[in-house]
Amino acid sequence: MIKIGICGYGNLAKGVESAVMHNEDMELVAVFTRRNPSDVKIATKNAAVYSMDDIAKFKDKIDVMVLCGGSATDLPAQTPELAKMFNVVDSFDTHAKIYEHFQNVEEAARNARKIAIISTGWDPGMFSLNRLIMESILPMGNDYTFWGKGVSQGHSDAIRRIEGVVDARQYTVPVEEALRSVRNAENPELTTRQKHTRECYVVVEDPSMNERVEKEIKEMPNYFADYDTTVNFISLDELKKNHNAIPHGGFVIRTGKTGVNLDTNHVIEYSLKLESNPEFTGSVLTAYARAAYNLNKRHECGCRTVFDIAPRDLSNKTYEDLLKHKL
Amino acid sequence: MIKIGICGYGNLAKGVESAVMHNEDMELVAVFTRRNPSDVKIATKNAAVYSMDDIAKFKDKIDVMVLCGGSATDLPAQTPELAKMFNVVDSFDTHAKIYEHFQNVEEAARNARKIAIISTGWDPGMFSLNRLIMESILPMGNDYTFWGKGVSQGHSDAIRRIEGVVDARQYTVPVEEALRSVRNAENPELTTRQKHTRECYVVVEDPSMNERVEKEIKEMPNYFADYDTTVNFISLDELKKNHNAIPHGGFVIRTGKTGVNLDTNHVIEYSLKLESNPEFTGSVLTAYARAAYNLNKRHECGCRTVFDIAPRDLSNKTYEDLLKHKL
Repeated sequence: MIKIGICGYGNLAKGVESAVMHNEDMELVAVFTRRNPSDVKIATKNAAVYSMDDIAKFKDKIDVMVLCGGSATDLPAQTPELAKMFNVVDSFDTHAKIYEHFQNVEEAARNARKIAIISTGWDPGMFSLNRLIMESILPMGNDYTFWGKGVSQGHSDAIRRIEGVVDARQYTVPVEEALRSVRNAENPELTTRQKHTRECYVVVEDPSMNERVEKEIKEMPNYFADYDTTVNFISLDELKKNHNAIPHGGFVIRTGKTGVNLDTNHVIEYSLKLESNPEFTGSVLTAYARAAYNLNKRHECGCRTVFDIAPRDLSNKTYEDLLKHKL
Repeated sequence: MIKIGICGYGNLAKGVESAVMHNEDMELVAVFTRRNPSDVKIATKNAAVYSMDDIAKFKDKIDVMVLCGGSATDLPAQTPELAKMFNVVDSFDTHAKIYEHFQNVEEAARNARKIAIISTGWDPGMFSLNRLIMESILPMGNDYTFWGKGVSQGHSDAIRRIEGVVDARQYTVPVEEALRSVRNAENPELTTRQKHTRECYVVVEDPSMNERVEKEIKEMPNYFADYDTTVNFISLDELKKNHNAIPHGGFVIRTGKTGVNLDTNHVIEYSLKLESNPEFTGSVLTAYARAAYNLNKRHECGCRTVFDIAPRDLSNKTYEDLLKHKL
């Protein structure tokens, strides 16, 4: 059994916990929290909750620590720190800072002879893997990534910060016409506005605020100004009833040309339709936790990404079984 | 530059040749044929054609030999034999015999300190990779593989063997209703007949044969008897005009459940739409030829499959570039 620890206990951690439950070669040993451990109720019967301060005591009791903190402040500090004691897996998703994060984690993990797999999940993660493999197979071509339809936590939070907003949910929606053009190998050059629209469901303190709030949303730089944005004002009841789930998904599509004169077209498409973003992301982290375990068992160490992991190391089946039934 | 050799010169080999042309880190050195070399015209200016009998002379002149023979008789003999001299890549696709093939090649490659990557292409190959990764992420679920719409060479050949048939083309077509049900996470149990239909375009010597030929096709065991088959009789001109290409493609779809009570649904889908099956397959073999080169440069040896290859080894970009732009 692979002994798993979980660091942090939000939505993602709950997704990891339930994934571990359904992977028969794994068991959850402990959850670590910054809150008062007795305030945190987990779903796993044979695991316990401990204070983050006690994590070092579990150095020899946990095979892989799955880090479920946020990318803004938690993971940049936690991943290198915990890689000094544990094999770790994280879902660091600030694309622009992955290289820097990699270098910090690499040094810590290598010195400790541990494996750290960073930036797993679906984007970065499964989508990255597909972008890389597709490009390697069809070097003469273009790839496109579309997200949605799904809830963007970052954009929902941005709306919530506006004065007078009680709660909000923002859906990122790929533009059908853009998807169609890409799939037809038309190789369009798409602006930000042409790829996605943003649909907002907003609860305000008072209807008199509607006009101002809508304007503030639509003009918000980086988040909304470059998109066609729709704002719908709804009641708190309606938000809770119809917008409580955290679905997401998206598409990676590569169109490429082959042949001596590059006159043959191919389309490769990878898509996800997820009812729960954190549960799916948690499932990906769990599979990479197995890979971290497998690599470290072979005495490998250092920082890895999804690009380094052979598919075989994600599976709990024997190689013979895989060759006979999956190849 | 990675020096590539090609063994055999049919449609697949031509696909590999044109792929090598468009991969700037590779060059084609030589094509080996069982025919008279002077009868074989290739598209690459700076490469030459040699007799298969002379292949051993190139032992130190070629980094990876890409084997483009058939799975029935060529590859079972060629891959283990040539793995004694070269790093090799093949597209052995008789699913039921892959494990046996693996064992034969493993011994030869290991003794010679070479890398052999077998059963690459798209199925086995990209589809296998996706089946494995999807299952590892969502262990509680089902996967489905659909092929088409595309030309099946084996089924076209089977029709051509019927008396009175001049030429034929057989398309495998996935059943839309089955695809829809799978994508809706209905987890249907599908019979052979419910998954694919078979469309045949047949040229006969004389229209009086139509009835007999249609009956023979539809009742042919293994190939057609278990499917809903449509037979269209057309002229040789029409066949050449409208059915000359070798398109193919297909879908791998996994639906899986997550959550403590397994009540959350997810759908992962990977699909290919290929205007030319051999050109795409050749492109996959070429990317795996790069991986074979990379592995052997690190002094690895033995037989590998797509399950063993880290995505990074398929790419000609630096790891820093990949982390910064593809992750």
